[in-house]
This record gives sequence, C-alpha cells and structure tokens, in this order.
Amino acid sequence: MDITSSPQAPLHRSASEPTLRRLPTYRRFLEQLHRQGRAVVSCTHIADDLGLDPTQVRKDLAVTGIVGKPKVGYQVPMLIAAIDSFLGWDNATEAFLVGAGSLGTALIGYEGFRDHGLNIVAAFDVDESKIGEKVRGRAVMPLSKLPNLAQRMHIHLGIITTPEAGAQQAADLMIEGGIRAIWNFAPVTLKVPEGIIVENVQLSSSLAVLSNKLQDVLRKEEGA
Amino acid sequence: MDITSSPQAPLHRSASEPTLRRLPTYRRFLEQLHRQGRAVVSCTHIADDLGLDPTQVRKDLAVTGIVGKPKVGYQVPMLIAAIDSFLGWDNATEAFLVGAGSLGTALIGYEGFRDHGLNIVAAFDVDESKIGEKVRGRAVMPLSKLPNLAQRMHIHLGIITTPEAGAQQAADLMIEGGIRAIWNFAPVTLKVPEGIIVENVQLSSSLAVLSNKLQDVLRKEEGA
Repeated sequence: MDITSSPQAPLHRSASEPTLRRLPTYRRFLEQLHRQGRAVVSCTHIADDLGLDPTQVRKDLAVTGIVGKPKVGYQVPMLIAAIDSFLGWDNATEAFLVGAGSLGTALIGYEGFRDHGLNIVAAFDVDESKIGEKVRGRAVMPLSKLPNLAQRMHIHLGIITTPEAGAQQAADLMIEGGIRAIWNFAPVTLKVPEGIIVENVQLSSSLAVLSNKLQDVLRKEEGA
Repeated sequence: MDITSSPQAPLHRSASEPTLRRLPTYRRFLEQLHRQGRAVVSCTHIADDLGLDPTQVRKDLAVTGIVGKPKVGYQVPMLIAAIDSFLGWDNATEAFLVGAGSLGTALIGYEGFRDHGLNIVAAFDVDESKIGEKVRGRAVMPLSKLPNLAQRMHIHLGIITTPEAGAQQAADLMIEGGIRAIWNFAPVTLKVPEGIIVENVQLSSSLAVLSNKLQDVLRKEEGA
C-alpha cells in the first residue's frame, strides 16, 4: 500500500484492546518527532524508543490502514492523522461530567484531552453548594437536569467522577439522557443495559498491581 | 483448607496481573456485604453480582490462601483481611508525590487510598509559586530536595502527576532517592533501570478504547 494513501479509507477495521491502548503511546512519540521536524520514522526506531517489539509495532500501526515503506518507514504527519482518524480523535466529542470534586476539576482542566477530541462541555453535581459555581469556565448544574440537556444537546459520552455512593445514579441518568458511553472513575462496578459502553479507570486495581510488586521486591531484599 | 486458617500464611503466592486487578473489586463488594452485616458469602453470589464467572472468582480468591467451604462459602471479614494481606494493604506504605497540580491534589485528597494502605506524606513541585504552600495539609517542597528526603525517610513509592515535560526528571530523582516503585500518571513512557517497578495510569489509552468503541456504535446506527 502507498503510504500517501488517505487515512480516511480504513475506518471500519477493528483492533484488539491492547492495540487500542498502545496507539496513544505511538501518537505521543510521533508528535515528539514531528515537533523535532522529523518527516519519516521507521518501525524499528519506534520500537526501540518505546521498548516494544518491531513486529508488534508494525501490526498495531497497520490497523490504521497506514503501512510503512520498506527501508523508508512511515510519514510522521500522515501516521498521526491516521491514528486520530482511527480513534475518532479528529472530531470533537462533547461530554458531560458528573461529580465536580477535585478529580472532576482535574479532568476538566486537563489540556491533553483537546488533542484527543474530547470536549467536556458541562459539569453536574448533587451538592447544592457547588451548583451555579464555575469549574474552569464550565457552570456546575444540578444532576437532575442532565437527562433533558443530554438529549437536547445530543451528548453521547458521560464521565463519572463522583464518590462510590453517587456513581450508579449518575450512570442511570446518563443512560436516560441517551448517553451511549461512560468513562467511569468511581470505585464502583456499574450496572448498565446491554449496548452501553463502560470504560473503567480503577485506580485501586492499578494500585493493587503496584503494591503487590513492591511488596515482592522488598520481601526478596529482606530475605537476601 | 479450613476457612478459619490465618490469612498470613500464603504471602508468597504469585498472582497474574488480571487477578491482581480484580482483587480490589472483590474487596469492594465484600466491604459492602460487611457493612450490611453479612458474615458469609458464596462464590456464585460474588460472581453473579460482579458479572464474572464463578470458576474465575474461585481461582482469583484462592491466591489469597482462603478457600471457601463447600455449600457455605467464604467468611466475609476473613476474606477481606486475606486480600489486604496479599496486596500489602494491611501495612501503611508512605509515598512521595511529584506535581502538585490539580491531579496531584485530587490524589492527595482521595480518601479511598487510606483503606489501601497508601499514605502520601509529601508533595514536590518545581513551580516556585507552589513551594511552601499546603495541599490538603501536606507542605509542597522543592523537587531538588526529594532524593535526600526519600533516603532519610526510607520512602519506596513515588507518584508522578506532573505534565509530560517534568515526568522523566521526577522519575530520575525518585530513583536517586532509593524509590523502587513509581505510579506514573504523566503521559510519558518513563525510562528506568531494570528492577524499578512502573505502573502507568494512561488516561489517553483508556480514552482510546472508549472513543473507538463509541465511534463504532454511532457509525453502526447511522448505517442502520
């Protein structure tokens, strides 16, 4: 395949979840090269820098429809565009966020999301003292208004940053409002109807892996 | 095995990463049952509620050394203690955090970490305007002081919540100070010596999975 072929063509390819999770890492490295003025990069170079296997890198990047030219490699800006198109990051997705606490505020303020086509347009909370306040320019609205507003604004993505207790209610109201995908940061296993996408960011799961590995290392040292 | 056997015994068992990631979900459900006053729970009950396979649940929980009694199940408080012991959450682990921005502040303020034995004892930053300020009771110190303090306080765990640009420097100083495990929230692939544990929380990877799935769903609807 010609590396100058449009990245628009292969939109319907499917990718495994591990591949999807690696694509932003490639994108970040490619952006770095782009800023340094590099036009072309080889698979081996990407693999070396990121500590991955070159065959894996080639296979991952192929899902975007872009194939590197032998002995030349990938055109950097073209590959970035192809990754963005594949992930849907070339179109802005508007999202509602429920839970205007410190994590919610951090996510609303995270500038990196703009590069990923994510635009958090409003925040909701049940805490009366927060309603009417502004969080980084977005008004905090009462949670009860979410379903109606989501329908009127055709919002498809919801972000939950509530404590454990409020998360299921937030999800229920999102689904009532026509939201199809939920990014859940609350420490809860949400119950949702079939067809609703839930992506969990479970900090406790990540901490479990870290704690267990650290415990092993320290124990081995003590034993040694 | 007797379900009343001590959860201390099997400390050296190893578990796969997917099992480790599921253990906090079991723990959360068990805590909920415990608050409701339930003393015993069956494998099937846990599996049903969390939408998992009962065989998987039995296998996962066996890594803690606790085996349920046939037709009775697990003693709830015993199983919670066994999970905590297995993950090292029964002992407080002190941690340093670098990057006292909004994400750092959110993590310092997250009360759930106390249940997981994580105690963030100090925050560091390079921003002069933040140094000397307090973030939820912790003084923000200059990053340059980290290696010396980490050594003196025998800190083994570091948390990075800096922007992309500052993350590698933060990691280097942590390692210089004897930190063995890094919980990295920055959008960077850290370069660390062998033997240093890095657990990445890459929000962009999580968003990639979500964006791609949402795009697929919306496209199918348009096509239908």
